Amino acid sequence: MILDLINTREFQRLRRIRQLGTASSTFHGAEHSRFTHSVGVYEITRQICDNFQRNYPSQSTDDGLWNDDERLVALCAALLHDIGHGPYSHTFEHIFGTNHENVTVEILTSPATEVNKVLREVAPDFPEKVASVIQKTYPNPQVVQMISSQIDADRMDYLLRDSYYTGTNYGTFDLRRILRVMRPYKNGITFHISGMHAVEDYIVSRFQMYQQVYFHPVSRSMEVILNRLLQRAKFLFENNQLTEETPPHLLLPFFENNFSVEDYIRLDDGVLNTYFIQWSMSPDKILSDLASRFLNRKPLKSARFSATTSNQIPKLCELVSAAGYNAAYYTATNDSFDLPYDVYAPSQSKKITQIELYQDDGTLIELSKVSKLVAAITGEFSGDERFFFPREMLTSSREIDLFAPIYEQFQRHLKNGWLIDKKTDY
Amino acid sequence: MILDLINTREFQRLRRIRQLGTASSTFHGAEHSRFTHSVGVYEITRQICDNFQRNYPSQSTDDGLWNDDERLVALCAALLHDIGHGPYSHTFEHIFGTNHENVTVEILTSPATEVNKVLREVAPDFPEKVASVIQKTYPNPQVVQMISSQIDADRMDYLLRDSYYTGTNYGTFDLRRILRVMRPYKNGITFHISGMHAVEDYIVSRFQMYQQVYFHPVSRSMEVILNRLLQRAKFLFENNQLTEETPPHLLLPFFENNFSVEDYIRLDDGVLNTYFIQWSMSPDKILSDLASRFLNRKPLKSARFSATTSNQIPKLCELVSAAGYNAAYYTATNDSFDLPYDVYAPSQSKKITQIELYQDDGTLIELSKVSKLVAAITGEFSGDERFFFPREMLTSSREIDLFAPIYEQFQRHLKNGWLIDKKTDY
Amino acid sequence: MILDLINTREFQRLRRIRQLGTASSTFHGAEHSRFTHSVGVYEITRQICDNFQRNYPSQSTDDGLWNDDERLVALCAALLHDIGHGPYSHTFEHIFGTNHENVTVEILTSPATEVNKVLREVAPDFPEKVASVIQKTYPNPQVVQMISSQIDADRMDYLLRDSYYTGTNYGTFDLRRILRVMRPYKNGITFHISGMHAVEDYIVSRFQMYQQVYFHPVSRSMEVILNRLLQRAKFLFENNQLTEETPPHLLLPFFENNFSVEDYIRLDDGVLNTYFIQWSMSPDKILSDLASRFLNRKPLKSARFSATTSNQIPKLCELVSAAGYNAAYYTATNDSFDLPYDVYAPSQSKKITQIELYQDDGTLIELSKVSKLVAAITGEFSGDERFFFPREMLTSSREIDLFAPIYEQFQRHLKNGWLIDKKTDY
Amino acid sequence: MILDLINTREFQRLRRIRQLGTASSTFHGAEHSRFTHSVGVYEITRQICDNFQRNYPSQSTDDGLWNDDERLVALCAALLHDIGHGPYSHTFEHIFGTNHENVTVEILTSPATEVNKVLREVAPDFPEKVASVIQKTYPNPQVVQMISSQIDADRMDYLLRDSYYTGTNYGTFDLRRILRVMRPYKNGITFHISGMHAVEDYIVSRFQMYQQVYFHPVSRSMEVILNRLLQRAKFLFENNQLTEETPPHLLLPFFENNFSVEDYIRLDDGVLNTYFIQWSMSPDKILSDLASRFLNRKPLKSARFSATTSNQIPKLCELVSAAGYNAAYYTATNDSFDLPYDVYAPSQSKKITQIELYQDDGTLIELSKVSKLVAAITGEFSGDERFFFPREMLTSSREIDLFAPIYEQFQRHLKNGWLIDKKTDY
Repeated sequence: MILDLINTREFQRLRRIRQLGTASSTFHGAEHSRFTHSVGVYEITRQICDNFQRNYPSQSTDDGLWNDDERLVALCAALLHDIGHGPYSHTFEHIFGTNHENVTVEILTSPATEVNKVLREVAPDFPEKVASVIQKTYPNPQVVQMISSQIDADRMDYLLRDSYYTGTNYGTFDLRRILRVMRPYKNGITFHISGMHAVEDYIVSRFQMYQQVYFHPVSRSMEVILNRLLQRAKFLFENNQLTEETPPHLLLPFFENNFSVEDYIRLDDGVLNTYFIQWSMSPDKILSDLASRFLNRKPLKSARFSATTSNQIPKLCELVSAAGYNAAYYTATNDSFDLPYDVYAPSQSKKITQIELYQDDGTLIELSKVSKLVAAITGEFSGDERFFFPREMLTSSREIDLFAPIYEQFQRHLKNGWLIDKKTDY
Repeated sequence: MILDLINTREFQRLRRIRQLGTASSTFHGAEHSRFTHSVGVYEITRQICDNFQRNYPSQSTDDGLWNDDERLVALCAALLHDIGHGPYSHTFEHIFGTNHENVTVEILTSPATEVNKVLREVAPDFPEKVASVIQKTYPNPQVVQMISSQIDADRMDYLLRDSYYTGTNYGTFDLRRILRVMRPYKNGITFHISGMHAVEDYIVSRFQMYQQVYFHPVSRSMEVILNRLLQRAKFLFENNQLTEETPPHLLLPFFENNFSVEDYIRLDDGVLNTYFIQWSMSPDKILSDLASRFLNRKPLKSARFSATTSNQIPKLCELVSAAGYNAAYYTATNDSFDLPYDVYAPSQSKKITQIELYQDDGTLIELSKVSKLVAAITGEFSGDERFFFPREMLTSSREIDLFAPIYEQFQRHLKNGWLIDKKTDY
Repeated sequence: MILDLINTREFQRLRRIRQLGTASSTFHGAEHSRFTHSVGVYEITRQICDNFQRNYPSQSTDDGLWNDDERLVALCAALLHDIGHGPYSHTFEHIFGTNHENVTVEILTSPATEVNKVLREVAPDFPEKVASVIQKTYPNPQVVQMISSQIDADRMDYLLRDSYYTGTNYGTFDLRRILRVMRPYKNGITFHISGMHAVEDYIVSRFQMYQQVYFHPVSRSMEVILNRLLQRAKFLFENNQLTEETPPHLLLPFFENNFSVEDYIRLDDGVLNTYFIQWSMSPDKILSDLASRFLNRKPLKSARFSATTSNQIPKLCELVSAAGYNAAYYTATNDSFDLPYDVYAPSQSKKITQIELYQDDGTLIELSKVSKLVAAITGEFSGDERFFFPREMLTSSREIDLFAPIYEQFQRHLKNGWLIDKKTDY
Repeated sequence: MILDLINTREFQRLRRIRQLGTASSTFHGAEHSRFTHSVGVYEITRQICDNFQRNYPSQSTDDGLWNDDERLVALCAALLHDIGHGPYSHTFEHIFGTNHENVTVEILTSPATEVNKVLREVAPDFPEKVASVIQKTYPNPQVVQMISSQIDADRMDYLLRDSYYTGTNYGTFDLRRILRVMRPYKNGITFHISGMHAVEDYIVSRFQMYQQVYFHPVSRSMEVILNRLLQRAKFLFENNQLTEETPPHLLLPFFENNFSVEDYIRLDDGVLNTYFIQWSMSPDKILSDLASRFLNRKPLKSARFSATTSNQIPKLCELVSAAGYNAAYYTATNDSFDLPYDVYAPSQSKKITQIELYQDDGTLIELSKVSKLVAAITGEFSGDERFFFPREMLTSSREIDLFAPIYEQFQRHLKNGWLIDKKTDY
């Protein structure tokens, strides 16, 4: 049955959507798809279930141990948790107002999909059960935490996988050891304290992958370009200026804000790139330039800023305009809306499952209480704020150029990769 | 300058073309692109040049040692050797009559390309020099053999890389040791005999990768579907039946057999897949079905055949037709035109560079003379001939089906994955 | 109970005996002990049993499937199969007439050992049962082949382990895949044909490890020195010339050819080395020189010879004598008595279990029938014959030396690492 | 010349001394010797020198760049930095008052050694120069820091090596990246800030290796036993009760506190173990029992204690005595004298070289200023205090035993692996 799910067209489509979006422009090995990740999450979940069933099988209702009847729903949720992702997810969603979690639920529960058909063969309410695991409303917390918690099959797979494909070794940790010390309990999943260091290493690895890979400024810069490109295309469409011989057929429902699941399923990275190739020949200079920059990897440059230097940004945008760029399309601040800054910070508004360690006398102790390293990064905002601008602004003033004085002014605002406070007049 | 070449749009486009084509449908991790491979070949070549310059620098003309003036041409040829590859190369070439080697030369030498522009900055005749290395007409055999011979930077990179991404470990060998025993000589490149076992292991690994990965029947089956799909589209186009709302704009020059390098450079895997998505909604049943099969990975099945059983094929095609399939599109024999069967066979017609080992007294000895393993696979045809057909033909006769008797007849021709000689009448 | 066996002193002693003997003098990472190997064989066997019990549990007597009652005897035999190994096994055995297989049986069955005590707790005849598996007389061929056959847990562990610690990658193969296609049948163990390439790769890896690691001339040279050293010590002892302040207490029973299991268990690599350190201060020049050569890694040199050139050896020995060395102690031909030359050759005298592959229709096919690579090395003698001599014999004649003319004569017999036929007179 | 140093008997002897001492009793793969580590440190140092010479060659005196005349002294110091280590270094030193750093200097500078002879061939004062690098008095801080600083070739090698052989993956970090960002400057060695995360990962890895491997309670327990065993032997010797047939010949100079370098060089792990084997047959019950425990891996148990619970220890020792053990030999607190607790704490008394990062404008910034993870563990005491006692004290009171009430009392002082404050009377 898992094989039947893999063979659906909704799932096969994940082969054509890269897991890390624009990150492969920085880490060129990272060209793996959401397909391989999804299969990996399934496999880790299967191992967890096997382990639970072998060592902690439930004997009676509510004994807090593992009930193997939950296996199928857990495995399906693991396999399908990302089924609703579209191409370049976060940016696409931002521009077109889609939401991959809602689409996931719709793909699972809409009778029109092949996935739904396979799930319905188990039981009429099975699609909704699987969806509720992904929505975290499923009653059994063990199943929910297996798929989504601070240390779940999803994260463990993507850290190891992304680490493998990027060729960094920050993401490595001892998966086998973690699986061995994992155990079910009444409120979800816990880890025997003898595996504390393996869990600690996983948290540290995750922190390092964010710092080094997921927050990489070049990948984010490519995402900024993509954002501006789609924004421009939408603007042109809405103003009837997207006048090509061959319209972006498969994207039209999204421009028109009137799309079905069927329309959504037809999208993938290649479809978007195909339209970008067409747009790179557009008479609209901004559209064609942004499309070329995205396709041919011409990233913007960026500098970090802080609360006290953010006030420099309007002035810098002015200079970018003065140098001949439409600042609305050629500058950006990365507001990081889609980056998990607060992953390990149990904020008040959002209930986060703590990582609890199981001690020999049966009591639990929260991870950061025993790990100095984890304590150091708990609840801390992590990442950076960046201002993006065309690399041309960094042209050396020694080169003869019409805009040399503007470039020079611009550069006086930067030092060691940061915006600085520049009070002097120009 | 290497960086400038990488930043050209012709080279960046390789990010959107998978190295192994349809093989990722079998080995799902193998989603890496020709971009990463090309960079890898460059890097190995760089290490070879470093090694040669450190240990075997030429002192006088014709001393058979390494002249470091050759470094730049070697590095450029290494980086650009695959620049002319299009999407799903072999199949596409077969249908549309393109040739990636010719395109490579054209991209290098046509003044219209960014690559040419970068190369020309070195010297006016530099693009042609680089091209001649790839065409094997460059006078210095050391440079040519570095890039293309039986043991070159190209093959060493793709074996290790494909092995890494497919997750098999057949392709591994000791690259470092091979690089250490490599040395230039008058007629090209040789290897000190102390590294014989490393070279032997490379040959055996290559043999095993072909057997296990490159010849995998499922990948070949997907290639068969792709072939039939493009063939059908071409047929419909030529008969004015490819009547869609949005024509396959970027493919039209190829249907019309009138394309420029510019047209070629616009193609990539995603462009083809995008048209396949459109074709999967075509009113032509064969086109839409083949497109769906390709996109959603519904491979054909296959069986091996030999010279004595190939005569069964017409009968089997008849049965496939009788079961309702257009046999011209739903069967195939894999004539392996694109598979390197004779890689290690020094055929008469084609001059192949032998692997020569350097002995302590200065004489050379050919590899298969000292390696029993290599001798065993030297000059031997390797691979298999397969007949492909719809998996439905294998439907168990126990299922109630209109075509059950036909399926049963069909299946009587197969045993343990082979066609068998079936003399009895039906 | 496995833990109890590991905690016996007979088993702990294996920590002090290196798996590869003198090979660590060539591959300096290969310092691992027989202890880690034994635990590894146990672990692979455990995985095989788990797999067999999960997928092929016996339903009725004689159905050829796996009876899980056999698990304990299989695990114990796996863990203890090398328990009788002493320090520098092969050489020690050769000089002192011990036999590690006999000692293994004795350690298992003698009531004096801790191992026997643990085993007896299972059943009075359990020690003998375990011993019979190692002696290959146990009635169930599945259990016997798991531990010793052409592809058993022992070999799979040592290839992977030796490969890891020597840092070569010749020994790697896909253990997981092999375990997955392994299955029990009436006459032992077979492998599904879909895993043919994994099994082939294991055979090729084994062949390569022998060529590259186990037969390495420097390791064999160190073994030759060890052989001569023990021979000299024995000679001196027998002639009452081993007259030290502190006699080699723990070795005396072996010199006197009157030892118990108890005596044997007290030996390890360190004990022998300790006496070698003492002997390196001996007044007997040959003893002290050989001891120093062994401790401080001063290998002999060697050259290969063939049937037609072996007749040169007496002359060469004469020259070694003329140069001042006692040829009885400073030359040797390696007669390879302890090297598994015929491992894959089903000789008539010795019954060897073929590797059989399981086909879909239930029939078996022998491996070399379907693998060209395996066929190439089946039944073939593999290895080399070498003549060992002091490296001083290779002193360049340009150095002023009393023996220069002798060295020169000697060297005229060698070329490219081989003895050559030298008919001319001196 | 490096080869000549490796071929000295002082260096070859390192093959017979395990790098991690008793740790292989916990991590059974960790059987590698100081020989392989020393060669590894040499190799990393060689790569650093190559990199420095290629990218930062000194042009004029005092330009703070790399002067390649320093290469040889750096390489020799790297290779020989551990040459003075004896068997089970820390414990042996503690009992016999030896000091491996002093011995290292003596081996380098004493005319009696082979190492000195090889070094003297370079220049008469070369041995002293090499020694001064190891003693950190050499004038060039780049050379000193290469071999010993907070991030040096020594530590980088042992972390990666110990990680490899223990099979943990805590010790892994990106050596290549660190080597690439390393650069010389006036006051030593710095790292470009772009490699900050690689350096951070190295520090975190080091922290984790200490927590997980080097401080492992079982290894420390084996060290406690070794300590008590040597202490007992010394006591017996000093009281003329070490009356065996064969005295521990090679150890006598140390018992008599009258040893030469020559005597020291004769020791290795095997020599000590050989005497332990003899002592395990001693009539002295304590000596023979401790020797057996050490040889056959019967560790003591332990519990952690804190400043507030250390006052329980005398009472616990009393109970151990009451149960029939000589508490002077069968209990211990681990005072961690040999554990690097303050490695990353720049204490006042000891000048520690900070890790400085090089920024684009040429200024340096100390690592913990930019790394949250490193800041969290900077200057912090790390490790634990443990009380060791015979495992028999944990015998369950359910077993019938003469000492059951004593065991029970003892166990009331322990909880979750810690000593607890137990005020109630017994």
